[in-house]
Amino acid sequence: MTTEPTIAWRDGALELIDQTRLPAELVSLRLTAVPDVIDAIKRLAVRGAPAIGVAGAYGVALAAAADDPRTDPGAFRAAVAALRSARPTAVNLARMVDRVAAAAEAAAAPGAGTGAAGSPADAALAEAHRVRDEEREASRAMGERGADLVLDLVGRTPVRAMTICNTGGLATVERGTALAVIQTLHERGVLAEAIAMETRPLLQGARLTAWELGRMGAPHRLAVDGAGPFLLARGAADVVLIGADRVAANGDTANKIGSYSLALGAARAGVPFLVVAPESTVDVATASGADIEIEDRGPAEVVAWGGVATAPPGTAAVNPAFDVTPVDLITALVTDRRVVRFDQGHTLT
Amino acid sequence: MTTEPTIAWRDGALELIDQTRLPAELVSLRLTAVPDVIDAIKRLAVRGAPAIGVAGAYGVALAAAADDPRTDPGAFRAAVAALRSARPTAVNLARMVDRVAAAAEAAAAPGAGTGAAGSPADAALAEAHRVRDEEREASRAMGERGADLVLDLVGRTPVRAMTICNTGGLATVERGTALAVIQTLHERGVLAEAIAMETRPLLQGARLTAWELGRMGAPHRLAVDGAGPFLLARGAADVVLIGADRVAANGDTANKIGSYSLALGAARAGVPFLVVAPESTVDVATASGADIEIEDRGPAEVVAWGGVATAPPGTAAVNPAFDVTPVDLITALVTDRRVVRFDQGHTLT
Repeated sequence: MTTEPTIAWRDGALELIDQTRLPAELVSLRLTAVPDVIDAIKRLAVRGAPAIGVAGAYGVALAAAADDPRTDPGAFRAAVAALRSARPTAVNLARMVDRVAAAAEAAAAPGAGTGAAGSPADAALAEAHRVRDEEREASRAMGERGADLVLDLVGRTPVRAMTICNTGGLATVERGTALAVIQTLHERGVLAEAIAMETRPLLQGARLTAWELGRMGAPHRLAVDGAGPFLLARGAADVVLIGADRVAANGDTANKIGSYSLALGAARAGVPFLVVAPESTVDVATASGADIEIEDRGPAEVVAWGGVATAPPGTAAVNPAFDVTPVDLITALVTDRRVVRFDQGHTLT
Repeated sequence: MTTEPTIAWRDGALELIDQTRLPAELVSLRLTAVPDVIDAIKRLAVRGAPAIGVAGAYGVALAAAADDPRTDPGAFRAAVAALRSARPTAVNLARMVDRVAAAAEAAAAPGAGTGAAGSPADAALAEAHRVRDEEREASRAMGERGADLVLDLVGRTPVRAMTICNTGGLATVERGTALAVIQTLHERGVLAEAIAMETRPLLQGARLTAWELGRMGAPHRLAVDGAGPFLLARGAADVVLIGADRVAANGDTANKIGSYSLALGAARAGVPFLVVAPESTVDVATASGADIEIEDRGPAEVVAWGGVATAPPGTAAVNPAFDVTPVDLITALVTDRRVVRFDQGHTLT
């Protein structure tokens, strides 16, 4: 593993890869103040729920260093609130920001004295490091457990894996979810090839996953989304691995648009289809995929690319941002804590 | 029908829409000499097997007018040979060029005198018109028969139809295949909406089909290819209509990459999936889809669009140009002469 992490704390600053510049340039941002962190989150320089959560956690550490909650609690809390709402839909961001802010506040409490946690800024930084370490460990656990399952299901090596969107270190701290499994297979020397679907409309597969696979030295090829099911029919891959935005209580899985199509292709071809996602993605409050509302992101992403129009002016588009794969098409779910074999009748709850 | 045909003969010249300029501009080329026609075919200003065949037919008429086969048979035959090989893989081009050349040669034969066919140039032009008229009639027949079948299968109006690639007048003379059915439904006042898949990598759906639907005034929306199966799962369309590059003897159908994925989605959603193609597309010499070799068009189309890179430099790609939909996923084939209901156990031969 010779690659730089997506997010790192170095010499009192939060450093992160500017994902808006990829794949053209690898530019690392050095953020030393809360407004910089908020800006990076808002303009998608950092993306992916776990990565955003860790960025927010370090943002609170920067806030506590700038405005000591013992001397200026109002300024500290205003900074925390601003960080928390940099991406309102990212529940992970709010959760991690709250967690690190609570650690800082605890150290600032009158009775805290000069305990083991040190100053509020020290306590916040220590908690942010723990958030990062937990994400890293979850990523490694998913990678190892997923690789074991892939080898078990495929039954021979080397393995050819297909994936969609970006589920790697760029979306998390270091390894990601589905791409963590592919990286682990590669590190074990049993990855023949990864086929990355380009993932229209925003091309995260082409822009980010191809870049990450190149960075880890894993053999890979890109394909247009429409080619996935046919490549599976012609035997081009042994397993399909996807991440998840949300896993419903019955196992139905919402993920990037195009995932369902690969699931249909995998089922028809008899190829295992695995969802790899942290336990926090499982939403038992959602009974099934039918209860998941699908966001339409509007026509702009569909009718142009890179400033070049792909359709006549004024063309309308239907642009569902993600889709739902019914659990009967999913072989298993791999989380940081368990494997749920839907194909063997196991259930989440 | 207020639209201009893709190809027309006007005042001694072949006029055709330059498809390389769409959707940005509607530019009509006026071709008066054989080298112009060859150039238009080679640089894809005209595309689609039927349209290329008709362009080649009129090219022979231009050749006979320039080099009378009675006085300069060598020059005439050289021009015919050059036209014939402007697109070596288009079997339709060679067939139509040969047919019109034979009509010119017959009129040039010593015994032909000043018969009904007139001069070789007149005979060639008359035959080229017949080629055009036959293509137009085939297109209209497919449109009418397909619309009848759609209404029969869907059982209610108005109808929402999904399609992929460009199968309209731009690929033929006037109406096309699958898009002819959609146009006919629109003209009958029973089309609620057409959903056009964008059709990566070359985006024929976004560039050409959206343009044609707009030109005919039909309500339509564009979608990325990966969204097709999920839109079907959520009930967004009542029927899927595709064209065909080749239909094997057992009904397996080769068509633009992404078609198979829509067929899987349609089958799962219980939506009729129709192939619309001229009888000449049926290839009884090919037993099944397994015998169809798939051309890989190389990485360039996948890793960039409009001159903007979508992937890191040097990224490899797998780029199958078309896929094969097994006959068990196809409800019926509609040709210019018949409907074959695969879903009722009917067969092609």
